[in-house]
Amino acid sequence: MANKNNTEVVIDGKVYTLCGYESEEYLQKVASYINNKIAEVKQSESFRKQPLDIQEMIIRINLADDYFKVKKLADSLENDSEAKDKEAYDLKHDMIAAQIKIDSLEQEIKTLQDSITNYQKNIVRLETELQDMQK
Amino acid sequence: MANKNNTEVVIDGKVYTLCGYESEEYLQKVASYINNKIAEVKQSESFRKQPLDIQEMIIRINLADDYFKVKKLADSLENDSEAKDKEAYDLKHDMIAAQIKIDSLEQEIKTLQDSITNYQKNIVRLETELQDMQK
Repeated sequence: MANKNNTEVVIDGKVYTLCGYESEEYLQKVASYINNKIAEVKQSESFRKQPLDIQEMIIRINLADDYFKVKKLADSLENDSEAKDKEAYDLKHDMIAAQIKIDSLEQEIKTLQDSITNYQKNIVRLETELQDMQK
Repeated sequence: MANKNNTEVVIDGKVYTLCGYESEEYLQKVASYINNKIAEVKQSESFRKQPLDIQEMIIRINLADDYFKVKKLADSLENDSEAKDKEAYDLKHDMIAAQIKIDSLEQEIKTLQDSITNYQKNIVRLETELQDMQK
């Protein structure tokens, strides 16, 4: 397991030292995302007029809303993924059936070609016999 | 578009009235998720010892962390989805090629069968000629 590390991040203008197993890069990404979210809601005058606890609740709800939106996407992709697996399974199954059919048709062609060779030999034999008799 | 509606939710023990286009069901789900997240961090004694602003920052980071975890999953599913589309495309292409081959082999069999019918007729004709000559 990776070692714990301390990372300083700035969130909402304050410096916090985070201690954990996550990489500094990841924690900075998280901090930057939270700061963007805060900046986004602060653009609204009605947000700035709210008492601090309401502001905090709005920020939490916005963070949770992002989570649910991307979770909905992930769930839908997961369903699609299952449908695509099923489609690929069916296609592979059809492909195997097609290959078996190709093998069987090729075998049938070989058998017909062998028959043709025999018929041709038979015809040559009969024609020779006829020619011999006509002499 | 749906009408705006007011929904009362309880977050962290306080009642808030949310006004928006989201369904009450969705907003209750968001509130319940945030409450679970808070309950989760409050289990840790070291969290409870932190000043309120640090506690708030930890809750935000935990919410954002969930977002990034599920986003990573969604991104990975999106990549898988592209790979699966490519696989299905290739399989469909192979399937069309196999079907073309089957059609062509079936046509070849028909041609060979027609040849065989002709050879058989030829043989019957030659055999009749021979029998006539032998009389």
